[in-house]
Amino acid sequence: MNYEVVDAKVSPEGRLRVLSKAEMAKLLDTSQSGLYPVFRNSALAVLNSGAYMDDGKELLERYPDFDIRIVEEERGIKLELKAAPAIAFVDGKMIRGIREHLFAVLRDILFVDVDIQKNPYFDLSTSEGLTDAVFHILRNADVLRARVEPRLVVCWGGHSISREEYDYTKSVGYQFGLRGLDICTGCGPGAMKGPMKGAAIAHAKQRVEGGRYIGISEPGIIAAESPNPIVNELVVCPDIEKRLESFVRIGHSIVVFPGGVGTAEEILYILGILLHPDNAEVPFPLIFTGPASAASYFVQIDDFIGRTLGIEARKRYRVLIDDPIAVARHVEQEIEGVRLFRNRTKDAYYFNWRLRIPTELQQPFKPTHEAMRDLDLHRDQAPHRLAANLRRAFSGVVAGNVKSDTIMAIQEHGPFEIHGDPEILQPLDTLLEAFVQQHRMKLPGKRYEPCYRVVV
Amino acid sequence: MNYEVVDAKVSPEGRLRVLSKAEMAKLLDTSQSGLYPVFRNSALAVLNSGAYMDDGKELLERYPDFDIRIVEEERGIKLELKAAPAIAFVDGKMIRGIREHLFAVLRDILFVDVDIQKNPYFDLSTSEGLTDAVFHILRNADVLRARVEPRLVVCWGGHSISREEYDYTKSVGYQFGLRGLDICTGCGPGAMKGPMKGAAIAHAKQRVEGGRYIGISEPGIIAAESPNPIVNELVVCPDIEKRLESFVRIGHSIVVFPGGVGTAEEILYILGILLHPDNAEVPFPLIFTGPASAASYFVQIDDFIGRTLGIEARKRYRVLIDDPIAVARHVEQEIEGVRLFRNRTKDAYYFNWRLRIPTELQQPFKPTHEAMRDLDLHRDQAPHRLAANLRRAFSGVVAGNVKSDTIMAIQEHGPFEIHGDPEILQPLDTLLEAFVQQHRMKLPGKRYEPCYRVVV
Amino acid sequence: MNYEVVDAKVSPEGRLRVLSKAEMAKLLDTSQSGLYPVFRNSALAVLNSGAYMDDGKELLERYPDFDIRIVEEERGIKLELKAAPAIAFVDGKMIRGIREHLFAVLRDILFVDVDIQKNPYFDLSTSEGLTDAVFHILRNADVLRARVEPRLVVCWGGHSISREEYDYTKSVGYQFGLRGLDICTGCGPGAMKGPMKGAAIAHAKQRVEGGRYIGISEPGIIAAESPNPIVNELVVCPDIEKRLESFVRIGHSIVVFPGGVGTAEEILYILGILLHPDNAEVPFPLIFTGPASAASYFVQIDDFIGRTLGIEARKRYRVLIDDPIAVARHVEQEIEGVRLFRNRTKDAYYFNWRLRIPTELQQPFKPTHEAMRDLDLHRDQAPHRLAANLRRAFSGVVAGNVKSDTIMAIQEHGPFEIHGDPEILQPLDTLLEAFVQQHRMKLPGKRYEPCYRVVV
Amino acid sequence: MNYEVVDAKVSPEGRLRVLSKAEMAKLLDTSQSGLYPVFRNSALAVLNSGAYMDDGKELLERYPDFDIRIVEEERGIKLELKAAPAIAFVDGKMIRGIREHLFAVLRDILFVDVDIQKNPYFDLSTSEGLTDAVFHILRNADVLRARVEPRLVVCWGGHSISREEYDYTKSVGYQFGLRGLDICTGCGPGAMKGPMKGAAIAHAKQRVEGGRYIGISEPGIIAAESPNPIVNELVVCPDIEKRLESFVRIGHSIVVFPGGVGTAEEILYILGILLHPDNAEVPFPLIFTGPASAASYFVQIDDFIGRTLGIEARKRYRVLIDDPIAVARHVEQEIEGVRLFRNRTKDAYYFNWRLRIPTELQQPFKPTHEAMRDLDLHRDQAPHRLAANLRRAFSGVVAGNVKSDTIMAIQEHGPFEIHGDPEILQPLDTLLEAFVQQHRMKLPGKRYEPCYRVVV
Repeated sequence: MNYEVVDAKVSPEGRLRVLSKAEMAKLLDTSQSGLYPVFRNSALAVLNSGAYMDDGKELLERYPDFDIRIVEEERGIKLELKAAPAIAFVDGKMIRGIREHLFAVLRDILFVDVDIQKNPYFDLSTSEGLTDAVFHILRNADVLRARVEPRLVVCWGGHSISREEYDYTKSVGYQFGLRGLDICTGCGPGAMKGPMKGAAIAHAKQRVEGGRYIGISEPGIIAAESPNPIVNELVVCPDIEKRLESFVRIGHSIVVFPGGVGTAEEILYILGILLHPDNAEVPFPLIFTGPASAASYFVQIDDFIGRTLGIEARKRYRVLIDDPIAVARHVEQEIEGVRLFRNRTKDAYYFNWRLRIPTELQQPFKPTHEAMRDLDLHRDQAPHRLAANLRRAFSGVVAGNVKSDTIMAIQEHGPFEIHGDPEILQPLDTLLEAFVQQHRMKLPGKRYEPCYRVVV
Repeated sequence: MNYEVVDAKVSPEGRLRVLSKAEMAKLLDTSQSGLYPVFRNSALAVLNSGAYMDDGKELLERYPDFDIRIVEEERGIKLELKAAPAIAFVDGKMIRGIREHLFAVLRDILFVDVDIQKNPYFDLSTSEGLTDAVFHILRNADVLRARVEPRLVVCWGGHSISREEYDYTKSVGYQFGLRGLDICTGCGPGAMKGPMKGAAIAHAKQRVEGGRYIGISEPGIIAAESPNPIVNELVVCPDIEKRLESFVRIGHSIVVFPGGVGTAEEILYILGILLHPDNAEVPFPLIFTGPASAASYFVQIDDFIGRTLGIEARKRYRVLIDDPIAVARHVEQEIEGVRLFRNRTKDAYYFNWRLRIPTELQQPFKPTHEAMRDLDLHRDQAPHRLAANLRRAFSGVVAGNVKSDTIMAIQEHGPFEIHGDPEILQPLDTLLEAFVQQHRMKLPGKRYEPCYRVVV
Repeated sequence: MNYEVVDAKVSPEGRLRVLSKAEMAKLLDTSQSGLYPVFRNSALAVLNSGAYMDDGKELLERYPDFDIRIVEEERGIKLELKAAPAIAFVDGKMIRGIREHLFAVLRDILFVDVDIQKNPYFDLSTSEGLTDAVFHILRNADVLRARVEPRLVVCWGGHSISREEYDYTKSVGYQFGLRGLDICTGCGPGAMKGPMKGAAIAHAKQRVEGGRYIGISEPGIIAAESPNPIVNELVVCPDIEKRLESFVRIGHSIVVFPGGVGTAEEILYILGILLHPDNAEVPFPLIFTGPASAASYFVQIDDFIGRTLGIEARKRYRVLIDDPIAVARHVEQEIEGVRLFRNRTKDAYYFNWRLRIPTELQQPFKPTHEAMRDLDLHRDQAPHRLAANLRRAFSGVVAGNVKSDTIMAIQEHGPFEIHGDPEILQPLDTLLEAFVQQHRMKLPGKRYEPCYRVVV
Repeated sequence: MNYEVVDAKVSPEGRLRVLSKAEMAKLLDTSQSGLYPVFRNSALAVLNSGAYMDDGKELLERYPDFDIRIVEEERGIKLELKAAPAIAFVDGKMIRGIREHLFAVLRDILFVDVDIQKNPYFDLSTSEGLTDAVFHILRNADVLRARVEPRLVVCWGGHSISREEYDYTKSVGYQFGLRGLDICTGCGPGAMKGPMKGAAIAHAKQRVEGGRYIGISEPGIIAAESPNPIVNELVVCPDIEKRLESFVRIGHSIVVFPGGVGTAEEILYILGILLHPDNAEVPFPLIFTGPASAASYFVQIDDFIGRTLGIEARKRYRVLIDDPIAVARHVEQEIEGVRLFRNRTKDAYYFNWRLRIPTELQQPFKPTHEAMRDLDLHRDQAPHRLAANLRRAFSGVVAGNVKSDTIMAIQEHGPFEIHGDPEILQPLDTLLEAFVQQHRMKLPGKRYEPCYRVVV
């Protein structure tokens, strides 16, 4: 199949950025160590907005001739695109929201390279250093705003959900928007798009100016979950762990909609944090919600959590089924509790410093066949550690499903093997199997070929 | 049935207005000549936003205790509401878009009374005087903006349309919005809401700030077609003729979606203008469009126009079925023609001075039983005059369907009688009958009782 | 002497106004009843900004060929100027502040004609009707702002003052500006310009955006006191009485700097109000201030008030010499009292409804020879009435000094004769004579020829 | 003498910045390597705004108890000040412009430390690396704006100038402002303040929103030349060489007013650049101007340049005496040439990349007694090198006059000795002597004790 392409030259949108000669050289450097490859592929993902697909590999193959160059002109920089997806344009002009995203990608890739990764100021071997890096990335993206009251709801959930589930996420977003709440998701379709769309309509009715639709992505996932143009603050973190940390540092509440293995990864991540003893007193609203038809889905999740992490874990979230207004009211009320707590503890509204994130949840997990095989999925560890390890297991499956390099590794070496205690592995296998049955692993219309094997 | 109500005190939203002591006294004057009754009822209509109904009488009966008072405080005026529809509130706070509408209603009712109707400056017996009054009402509502390029699309169509037709109006509005076009409708549900919703999402993606969603209503119709809160510029004209003139003076293109008898009135109105010999050279893009399922509807309309007004009338519009992108591109291109014409003739972009509107289309038509019976529906008149008279016939049927006082008159005296040449009456009867068959007279779920009788 | 002139075409600045065909015709109507003459002359005055002169007659003679036309273009109206004062332009482009003023003049002249003077809504024979008219003029000029805390200081004083006095007014304005106070004056040079200049610098340091520099003028005086371009809200009232009423309705405090007979008129005007029994409880801060060198000036004024209006009158103001910081602090503190009073009485911050202005101070006084001769300057009347009559006497002298038609009447019939009780006339004569001696009647460098004769 | 002090807690103004825990720790680190000392002293300088003094040492002694702490609150960071100069406050509230400056100081000190000095990305031993650092500092301060037409005039000149010279700088700034030009200076009184004040008034008249008053300082000089609160973009560079490079990279024209040895340093700096063969074709408007009374001053400068650097050097500037309008028109016209050149060469309007700055002008010069003695002031070198060395000589004298550590070194070791060819030294001695005679070395009222000795 042939995909329509367009050549174009675009000016920056949004807070305009000027670049130094040296930065431009870096972005044009096509060598292995240069930034061009990651910039080109992320830009391509952004341009593919709206045309969702399961894996980024497919995207790269669709637009093999795509090229992007920075040029400097007297009034500022421009981007020159060749053979770009026509879908990003309306009658030959690029959609402005997408233009913004292109420049956000550029901003973040440069910043991470120049100011973070090679800068000895950040000690990336320590928890403090990693958190500091996350803070700097978010600040540079202008996401951290002082003097703003807490009102950011992070929405997690699947990109491959049913029409009914999607409409439900829109309704919940609409109720959030009516109450002046802002939305943050991981970009992409499904549960990551619905709440923003609903909130945007509600914000229009409430005349909310500057409603925030924050999308946080990372280079490995952006191709599969390209940001909807409604996203008006896009951040590209260098890896999935910083992306997850960003969600919990800036969000004042997390709402989980039905999803698949990525959603499970996110749930395990946040439970891995909330179960850490240091966080016992920190309020952190966590709600699981979906339409009536999704009730059984949350029963499975809840059951899995109970069987693996125990009763305490189940106390850190609430399940609310089929009631968008109740969800919105509950979230609003819980956020007021967060506000009072931050106020009392002088913790910033815009960055949840006080939350302790264990280093094992911060350090990048590279899901090789070996790493997956060696995961420590045994009973004899603290629940927050087990949650962290389960998070890694799900993370590996996500990578095997959507990240092009992992897909290639699996094509070569076969599926990942996951080992551990049967009391852990059996519920895990059940849950994963349910995801497959419910078509939560892939966008509709494709058969799912598992990238893992649970070895009980 | 009981409807939930709320008491509240609200501050103005939008461009803030201060009132003089004398103006406040006028708005609180409950006497026959005072402004209170019309203000109260229009305010109630605005508060009922979203809960659409067929006639305003029903609305008044639902909220019999509703009361609204102006109070002055040191920082400006406020409105005190008693027993107001709860639907306008979210957790006890009025939706801001609705607050804006309340104050727009107040602004227009006062302005028409103080500055127009009793001011000898306006000679309302002449065409120029009536147009001048329309200009002043629109200017006072801040709708006329200098230095803005032509980009306002007026969308007409029914409030009682199918889900499929509604989704189609959204898609067309989305394509308009992607191209930076603004929307103007008559407020209300169906085809008057869909294009705004679509455009709002597209404007968000295109980062259009200040996208315009203009709603133009009048006190007699506002109860049945209460403005959607997305409307961010609401104008309440004193009568239907000034409302219709407003559409054609400020719109740069008119798009007609499927509708019922009100839509037919609008089509006859614009044809009554465009067929006037003075307007032969004035470009005025007019498009009829709908989904594939509505194709037959436009065949009927087109046929009716051909049989009553002749071949020339059919040249002034284009029918485009089931193609939102083509509609948007066509409109954009035609508006460019309008722009060039205005530029060449030095006619304002914001007000179509050059269009000649015949006085018979400007002067208020009061659809009494007598006036309806006496309508001149004969062949032996210029097409633009026949169009004007047909417009009145449809206007009477609209009033009989939705305006509370006309409904009461018909309950008392029986349906209107419509007389005329069979060559006119027969197609008219066919068309009206088709509307009834297609459920285009009433919102779904109600049986339609005709308010007219075509006496062939 | 020849004055440099420029031809130009200018677009509106500020809140853009669109005009109807009928309004444009009115402004181009050069007949006696048309608006062209007053518009042309006021526009000329505005263009002459900065080149101060004593009487408007001189201005008209300097630019005999000046002409101004409104033209309509597709993006809005423009003004075409011929032989306009070059002083309003920088390298051929009109200073934007002056452009704004041109369109403010146009706005007010039209509004007063169309919406006030011929509109039966306003009963200009009653005190309420006159106040309502003032309210509508100010509202139309967008001067009345809801939700703004009281902070407007009206500054009165002479246009012909010494460098030292001028620098003092700047210092006081600077201290006002540092405290976030806004300034309102009568336009023109001297004490009407200095406080604005000082406040503008202070507002820049305090990053005050939207600092207000309101100038209120009237067609008869604008030529002699053309607005400084710093004025960012210009209002042209139809007569001097509405101009004075505007000052006291919108100001939250009045500060009087040294001046001449116009300043004396203003002092008598405000005392005529404050001495009315109905206003006994209304707080209204009134401060007389100047540099040390002006101390004797205020001694004279204070003495004149004591001898004519009595001890009670002297209680309504405070004299503070040579201390800008003390003046600013005092004003700030007194305005807090005004705020509390308005808050308690629910009187608007933006319009001092509660203040009773006696009709004799509202009705236009036409200073003919006969009217001046018939002034009732006797002891046997309430102090507020005597103040009102003294106000008229000073008003007549102002007109004789600067208004072109009055100057011509005096050239023909000789100076005004002023009659009355010697206890009144003698202090009056002393004060006027002191003004002459101190060169407070004319700009420096001209000999003053009295336009009046006090007939003791 | 005792200076009034105030304790206060202030919130950030301007583009709000949030800080990480690690950054706060750095700013509170009072150790030798910590940032506290430089932050404290620079903050003190900013707070001393308006109370000009000759050397920073005196300032530190005046406010020995001054202390400044960063505290974090839920809505963002705040600064807690103890014993701060009362002069920065109005009735106990800090002037907002000064608040902005405090946070600008904080921003730049942190950025230079965290992102520049310890970051291996910047190779500060190369010309490219140094320029890149300057670019990053300016970008981080949000000074580099894309899509802005060239209109920035850098004004240099003395802080200790006569009233007449000061008024002249105001007039020139006023004429710049009328033409929409922005101003950049080195902060401080005299010629660094006058042009901003004049431009601010003109911008108000021209309704220029966002007029720019950029002040560029460095920690060693800021105490002696504290920024006027009109400065609305303050940048604190780490050293004088980066400060000078900033001026020439962002300015589109340089205007030099009368001054002393600092002004001479600046003139030699820019000539050192413009005489470099690589810059022969780069347009760079350079104007020397002053009132009639300063004519002889420029004759001396011009003579000194002619005798030391030769005839070619005199071609790179123009002297215009006593004509603010001519200066403004000339600058405007020359900037148009700059615009065309940048346009043609695709060089950014906001950063003069193409200008070659020799490394010897970029590398920090530390004026020790030894370095001063070893200056290479001989004929046998290219003029741009001689200019660079003369620049260092003047730089040393400036430091000896105002920088506290250099003042202390001279108190200990006696004045600097300056050696070289008599053909260079003799004109140098003459010029310095003239500065002393004309009281251009110190603020008025103090006797000047030379910090140097020219050893012919």
